[in-house]
Amino acid sequence: MVSFRPSGRRPDEMRHVSLEPSFVKHAEGSCLVKFGNTHVLCTASLENQAPPFLRGSGKGWVTAEYGMLPRATQERTRREAAAGRQSGRTQEIQRLIGRSLRAVTALDLLGERQIIIDCDVLQADGGTRTAAITGGFVALHQCLSFMTGTRLIARHAIRDHVAAVSCGIFQAMAVLDLDYPEDSAADTDANFVFSGSGGLVEVQGTAEGAPFTDEQFAELMKLARQGATMLVSLQKEALKL
Amino acid sequence: MVSFRPSGRRPDEMRHVSLEPSFVKHAEGSCLVKFGNTHVLCTASLENQAPPFLRGSGKGWVTAEYGMLPRATQERTRREAAAGRQSGRTQEIQRLIGRSLRAVTALDLLGERQIIIDCDVLQADGGTRTAAITGGFVALHQCLSFMTGTRLIARHAIRDHVAAVSCGIFQAMAVLDLDYPEDSAADTDANFVFSGSGGLVEVQGTAEGAPFTDEQFAELMKLARQGATMLVSLQKEALKL
Amino acid sequence: MVSFRPSGRRPDEMRHVSLEPSFVKHAEGSCLVKFGNTHVLCTASLENQAPPFLRGSGKGWVTAEYGMLPRATQERTRREAAAGRQSGRTQEIQRLIGRSLRAVTALDLLGERQIIIDCDVLQADGGTRTAAITGGFVALHQCLSFMTGTRLIARHAIRDHVAAVSCGIFQAMAVLDLDYPEDSAADTDANFVFSGSGGLVEVQGTAEGAPFTDEQFAELMKLARQGATMLVSLQKEALKL
Amino acid sequence: MVSFRPSGRRPDEMRHVSLEPSFVKHAEGSCLVKFGNTHVLCTASLENQAPPFLRGSGKGWVTAEYGMLPRATQERTRREAAAGRQSGRTQEIQRLIGRSLRAVTALDLLGERQIIIDCDVLQADGGTRTAAITGGFVALHQCLSFMTGTRLIARHAIRDHVAAVSCGIFQAMAVLDLDYPEDSAADTDANFVFSGSGGLVEVQGTAEGAPFTDEQFAELMKLARQGATMLVSLQKEALKL
Amino acid sequence: MVSFRPSGRRPDEMRHVSLEPSFVKHAEGSCLVKFGNTHVLCTASLENQAPPFLRGSGKGWVTAEYGMLPRATQERTRREAAAGRQSGRTQEIQRLIGRSLRAVTALDLLGERQIIIDCDVLQADGGTRTAAITGGFVALHQCLSFMTGTRLIARHAIRDHVAAVSCGIFQAMAVLDLDYPEDSAADTDANFVFSGSGGLVEVQGTAEGAPFTDEQFAELMKLARQGATMLVSLQKEALKL
Amino acid sequence: MVSFRPSGRRPDEMRHVSLEPSFVKHAEGSCLVKFGNTHVLCTASLENQAPPFLRGSGKGWVTAEYGMLPRATQERTRREAAAGRQSGRTQEIQRLIGRSLRAVTALDLLGERQIIIDCDVLQADGGTRTAAITGGFVALHQCLSFMTGTRLIARHAIRDHVAAVSCGIFQAMAVLDLDYPEDSAADTDANFVFSGSGGLVEVQGTAEGAPFTDEQFAELMKLARQGATMLVSLQKEALKL
Repeated sequence: MVSFRPSGRRPDEMRHVSLEPSFVKHAEGSCLVKFGNTHVLCTASLENQAPPFLRGSGKGWVTAEYGMLPRATQERTRREAAAGRQSGRTQEIQRLIGRSLRAVTALDLLGERQIIIDCDVLQADGGTRTAAITGGFVALHQCLSFMTGTRLIARHAIRDHVAAVSCGIFQAMAVLDLDYPEDSAADTDANFVFSGSGGLVEVQGTAEGAPFTDEQFAELMKLARQGATMLVSLQKEALKL
Repeated sequence: MVSFRPSGRRPDEMRHVSLEPSFVKHAEGSCLVKFGNTHVLCTASLENQAPPFLRGSGKGWVTAEYGMLPRATQERTRREAAAGRQSGRTQEIQRLIGRSLRAVTALDLLGERQIIIDCDVLQADGGTRTAAITGGFVALHQCLSFMTGTRLIARHAIRDHVAAVSCGIFQAMAVLDLDYPEDSAADTDANFVFSGSGGLVEVQGTAEGAPFTDEQFAELMKLARQGATMLVSLQKEALKL
Repeated sequence: MVSFRPSGRRPDEMRHVSLEPSFVKHAEGSCLVKFGNTHVLCTASLENQAPPFLRGSGKGWVTAEYGMLPRATQERTRREAAAGRQSGRTQEIQRLIGRSLRAVTALDLLGERQIIIDCDVLQADGGTRTAAITGGFVALHQCLSFMTGTRLIARHAIRDHVAAVSCGIFQAMAVLDLDYPEDSAADTDANFVFSGSGGLVEVQGTAEGAPFTDEQFAELMKLARQGATMLVSLQKEALKL
Repeated sequence: MVSFRPSGRRPDEMRHVSLEPSFVKHAEGSCLVKFGNTHVLCTASLENQAPPFLRGSGKGWVTAEYGMLPRATQERTRREAAAGRQSGRTQEIQRLIGRSLRAVTALDLLGERQIIIDCDVLQADGGTRTAAITGGFVALHQCLSFMTGTRLIARHAIRDHVAAVSCGIFQAMAVLDLDYPEDSAADTDANFVFSGSGGLVEVQGTAEGAPFTDEQFAELMKLARQGATMLVSLQKEALKL
Repeated sequence: MVSFRPSGRRPDEMRHVSLEPSFVKHAEGSCLVKFGNTHVLCTASLENQAPPFLRGSGKGWVTAEYGMLPRATQERTRREAAAGRQSGRTQEIQRLIGRSLRAVTALDLLGERQIIIDCDVLQADGGTRTAAITGGFVALHQCLSFMTGTRLIARHAIRDHVAAVSCGIFQAMAVLDLDYPEDSAADTDANFVFSGSGGLVEVQGTAEGAPFTDEQFAELMKLARQGATMLVSLQKEALKL
Repeated sequence: MVSFRPSGRRPDEMRHVSLEPSFVKHAEGSCLVKFGNTHVLCTASLENQAPPFLRGSGKGWVTAEYGMLPRATQERTRREAAAGRQSGRTQEIQRLIGRSLRAVTALDLLGERQIIIDCDVLQADGGTRTAAITGGFVALHQCLSFMTGTRLIARHAIRDHVAAVSCGIFQAMAVLDLDYPEDSAADTDANFVFSGSGGLVEVQGTAEGAPFTDEQFAELMKLARQGATMLVSLQKEALKL
């Protein structure tokens, strides 16, 4: 049977995913994550100071920043540093990544420190934010292992895995892990973030065309859960857990 | 029975909602919307030019901007104009409002024009974005009526109502229409945008503490649908439809 | 006799003025001031820190910020937060409001604290800066009453009232309290700020067309004094003094 | 009799004023103006395009920009280009200079062109804005002579002189042309802009301490008129009119 | 004999250099260049419009932009997009890259088009600007081949190779291709850009400590020429020329 | 023989150079430097605080800022304060001036203080950065004399002179001290910074057209050394050393 998906995938088939930990030299943790042609470099940087709102609390923080190289996209995008401000899209994505990673981290174990997860898209083909969460988790895990290894903290502060994937209604069918051609033509587009134990961490669904029904949304969520389960396995493999 | 909600409301009880159309003099449409102590002034401004990416397409656009007066909040917030940039939160909210309103507008009926919905929070007590969508719809509807009334367009371009409400898990119970004390203590917090015919336009759920289950999420969605139905009735009343 | 003023007012007649104190919930002081169709929301926010140049002096400060909602005006104005900077006009106005309010406040009674008066124009029809000063005084007075009421300060730090009104030469006649149609056609336009005891706090006159004479200026000043006397009465009424 | 003024001047005595036209090589007009130790370099630049709001009107425009070299002041001031924005004070001053010069220029004779008057303070000792208006007039006049000389315009577009000076209440006495030590200690401080024929173009008075009376204000205005008359003579001399 | 260089290299020994063309999918040309642990991703983007100053000239332009991923460095560097401006260092480097590449491009053969070379440092260990020029040339060459291949231009617009390398006085000895430990301890530090035919395109030498002599400078230049010759061979190999 | 240089100078002839120390009143050091029609006002400002990276080190710092008055140039340049950012050219120049002056200053004798050298171009005709270094040295020297005179520091912290001049290949000939017409037509353009004892502090050469040879570069360096020797004599004269 011929697939209706531009990539030839089955509706419930993810792109080839790879997670390459320790990709760069200086960072306390790092991972090059690929969801097909979407490539994101995630690094974790440890800073010995918590953000101002936590001073004196004894707690730490995990935050994320997101960027795209100008020619990660089909058409070159203007460099945000040259434009002098980060777009709304950039800020929305980095807030999502930060919330997702904090949801599985025991912030009270960190001491007054901050871990910054930088997610920079080297090549984009849809799903950069879900790849960033999935790979960012690996970088964060490495950073926390570094902290226990150097006795900065007594216990590893990761409480569970976290992984993310997109789904959508493409040509009236629910499909898993949208690539760019699907993403730009989908009627509905949703991002799901799951914990390793299957709980929902974030859900974001948007009707691009007609509103969607509860049933359609449930179908997307089911597909997403399958994808996330697979991503968690890959994380475990990459981290040799 | 004593309520566990700080406001004394039942779990499925919304705050007192009012919609006051034509609140200001100059705008083509306007509405002061109140969800309890949350007060948002929404105006619709017609511009005779579409944004650059639509030039030559014959289509129009609806976009939104969001702001808070500095002392809308318990602690004064720094004026974004003085800070020189809009926060990530502001940008995220105005993107959500814009998408929600476009979902029910026939953009191809507008001609190459743009309608800007400004949503300015005069007083904040939780749920400003859902109030803004609900009241912004009224301002937009008025503006489109102005356009048909002055024969700028042949047919009214609203295809359906759109209304929004938040829900959350507060003290282990699903509750409708979070106010600020609930919002800041909730485990899970979700915003739902529904069309008048009951379709889902946007869904955004976030686990503030522990991840949530599919069942919990379904319960929130059900409560939200009840709230949205009521909001649509109030919109009809306000617009005398 | 038919008036030559677009509004039908006599030359020495102000627009209907109202002062609505305690308009919002969170601020230490607030007032919705209306000069006819010009509506400005003024709030006073107490901050427990003086600006850097006063550290160690034992004195406090009063400052003002001014903004316009985008559709307060006939044509929508671009949001300054989106533009990334405050215009020269905005800065000039907020400096004027701040100086005027400081002129009647005993700053040495405040301790090292700052009161910020935010003046946000909900609807503009000429004279927004004079309305802001007049209403800002009410918000400031409430804030100082709050401070004495909560024993933050021993004595109320207001030394006198302050109120402001514009005058101009319209169709060769001196008129009081210009509205927008007059303001945009006037030859000369002046703003006067008076203390409650009739002293001059600020005077700003500008020839829009031909230069004006000393006699014309004296006439404008006389009209303005009448207006200010009335505004001070309304302030007393609003504050139940 | 010993003067009470720090500089030893009589109450109605201006500082030594000099106007040096054609101070720089490239500009269409220029003047180094000195009011005692206040030195301002004014240049006039002709641009063959009017600002957007005049396109198609056939009219021209005169505008001004103002800056201070960082060490024009006793303490070094941060460079505004490095700070990334012009202060409120800078914007207020450049708006005043522009309005004053436009008041004596026949803008409809300019064609759709713009003249920019740049006023840069090389050394500051009080009264920089009044020096800038007085010297800016000379630069503007030269630029208009250049335009008639090169037949860009048929008639010289200057309709009258314009000159400015400050006055203030210093140690309970009205004095002319405040220098920095007087300015920083004055109770009241006012700037007056006069046309060559003695009309008022701008009046700005501010009570720094106690409010001032009508009589005091009239006295300041009288002193200022004397100073302006002298400045106009110096302009004529400098321009060989 | 034991080397005095931290890396164990001989004075005239470069780090291992690799050039990986076509590293990313979307760009018209690209190259991942590595000088040891310094890794820079260079992409070439073709735009069908020349910059404004060339409109109507029939000529094209080549420009460069430079950036560092936040954790390319030992300590995390703040993201310039978040800071809202590019540093002086960034601007200086991107101007150097642009000038160097333009020096070997026949701009009049491009038509009114622009090629943007983006150089993004994935990992930094000294010499990022020289690596960027060397790898940027490969990306530019690919882009021009794409343009001849698709008949956008008739002839390949590269006139010569261009390659760059740094030298310095480290522990009183002239050494080739400084890595970060050498760079931060060197007395003198110089960057040389050579054409393929051995001409000098750019020379920049800086005394970090004591001034240097003509003889020392000549020695650095000689070493640099050797390095550049080798880099040009690698470029030819990578491009299969 | 008729010169081929637009100014009629011999190839090795500098423009008329003058150094006028103590040009302004407030600064701890100042100098108006003229290289022909290039006029730069340099001031030295002492600040009683070192930059953050030196806190606790006991050392001081010298830095420079550079600006151009808008009409220093033939065509008016937009004011950087109005544009909201300093150009890459400005930043590159001010970094060069700062490095050059630091190279001859004993920073460890300054205590934790900073000296800021502001270089503002009043009139530009080529060579503004070399004039700024040469005149900036005079301002810096005066500031250090002020510091020893007031016993802030025990010993004068200048270790050697520093002076700068440009050279270039103009009409195939090496010439000294390019003016604007030469600079804009030169094939190669180089700036040299020498210490008083003849050492090289900075060398920057750029091929504007064809690459240049080692021999050409040596010739430029020789000419520059002659020019710098003369500039150092003028500095001594100006400072009465």
